Amino acid sequence: MRKIAFLGPTATFSDLAVRHAFPEEERIPYSTIPACMDAVIKKEVDLAVVPIENTLEGTVNLTIDYLFHEADLYVVGEATAPIQQHLLVHKRYAQEWEETEKIMSHSHAIAQCHKFLHTYFADKPHEKMTSTAAAAQYIYDHPEQRLAAIANSLSAKEYDLAIAKENIHDHSFNHTRFFVLSREKEALALPLPLKEPKDKTTIFVTLPSDQAGTLHQVLSAFSWRRINLTKIESRPLKTGLGHYFFIIDISQAIDDVLIPGAFAEMEALGCTVKVLGSYRSYSIEYNK
Amino acid sequence: MRKIAFLGPTATFSDLAVRHAFPEEERIPYSTIPACMDAVIKKEVDLAVVPIENTLEGTVNLTIDYLFHEADLYVVGEATAPIQQHLLVHKRYAQEWEETEKIMSHSHAIAQCHKFLHTYFADKPHEKMTSTAAAAQYIYDHPEQRLAAIANSLSAKEYDLAIAKENIHDHSFNHTRFFVLSREKEALALPLPLKEPKDKTTIFVTLPSDQAGTLHQVLSAFSWRRINLTKIESRPLKTGLGHYFFIIDISQAIDDVLIPGAFAEMEALGCTVKVLGSYRSYSIEYNK
Repeated sequence: MRKIAFLGPTATFSDLAVRHAFPEEERIPYSTIPACMDAVIKKEVDLAVVPIENTLEGTVNLTIDYLFHEADLYVVGEATAPIQQHLLVHKRYAQEWEETEKIMSHSHAIAQCHKFLHTYFADKPHEKMTSTAAAAQYIYDHPEQRLAAIANSLSAKEYDLAIAKENIHDHSFNHTRFFVLSREKEALALPLPLKEPKDKTTIFVTLPSDQAGTLHQVLSAFSWRRINLTKIESRPLKTGLGHYFFIIDISQAIDDVLIPGAFAEMEALGCTVKVLGSYRSYSIEYNK
Repeated sequence: MRKIAFLGPTATFSDLAVRHAFPEEERIPYSTIPACMDAVIKKEVDLAVVPIENTLEGTVNLTIDYLFHEADLYVVGEATAPIQQHLLVHKRYAQEWEETEKIMSHSHAIAQCHKFLHTYFADKPHEKMTSTAAAAQYIYDHPEQRLAAIANSLSAKEYDLAIAKENIHDHSFNHTRFFVLSREKEALALPLPLKEPKDKTTIFVTLPSDQAGTLHQVLSAFSWRRINLTKIESRPLKTGLGHYFFIIDISQAIDDVLIPGAFAEMEALGCTVKVLGSYRSYSIEYNK
């Protein structure tokens, strides 16, 4: 049985993703994203599942930066999961949930439920917690207080709370992408029931000094080969303002001719190319 | 006398930038970046100075996203300032600063002084505050505790603290870019002593559905005209994973022919182009 590191505590969205992607494996919570990656490097675990991008918040910079600057790991799979937020209260207040006096959650979850909070709890304070699951746990531990958490259904189950209102998030299309990270380069077949796998390749590219002109040439190397890119994003190299590296997602697996040809051209232009992984991307769908 | 909104409280790095860029104007602190922008929109102030990018942390997503999605404002100037962090203690502990029992600051400042903290205070806890200045104020308010703040020299002066150690940041090249935002489109001449102004133009570009192919065409429109770009970055449109808009910095002012020609081509390709501003960029240098 493999060990899988995830961003804890129990019942976070990362935990939920791991339960679907690796239902048979041992899940081990870590308190930060770098700690999840370090656990793989130190061989405490076999794999780590970490968030890489969210529809509303964008790229998780901490994940990208740690992968670029610190952790020598490979992406061996990807899972995209819908983010469904519910209002959870202690079971003793299940009927009188509208009398909640304070809302607790991760700051992103609070932001994602702005309309609901404005409608039902416009004058009530919010308290930011380190995760949605930590908010749920706090409410379980403080039954004497009239509190509500914004968290997923797994948190309700794990911390024995009532779901007072389902699906209170503003946007139904909100998803988070998770990378599965390994010390080994080989792509991993994730077990079902993850649907519709697609091939993807993710690379880091560092440009030589004339950044803007070279970026155009880099994109040309892909474009004339009709290699489709699904994402291109810059992050600071941390060496000075205006110095960036780029994360590029290619919507196909590495082949024998076209992608290696593009990489060779980019290197001839003075770029550094690092293949983070060529892997399959899966969509998680939750059952009710 | 104009009124300038900045991210407070008194003595933040934003405040320091405003004092140098607008020494004669009235400075008004606001508690969040969106609140600074809203203050301009509601005409409570004339201008806002907000952080847009840091060498180590990258783009300030909150600023970019609020400018794109919410605030109809223009960039009329830019100032880049070095970030110099010092260790501040209550004056009664100026000599025994090594006996500090807890370090307080903004999480970014704590991260920026990792080596110093590891050398002198490896086993001491850190407490994250909403700003470096808030940490300084807390220390002034709690003289009975053995605390230290990581903050700038202005905080030492404003909150009457001793600078126990100067320049404790890991990287001497760390800078922050600040945008000067206005309701009016016209660029602003910032008063001296800001050095070496350069012309810049910043645009938001939204691509039609085939994103990657069009991005290559967009860069071509600039490239064949030899228009140099200093930055290109994507942010989520918040409508679904894989949907982005781009922030592009052009290293010249809008001219009559070349840049309008590039914009017209981009619009013919189905892109939406919004000019955030064509302005001058200044470097702030602090005196000791």
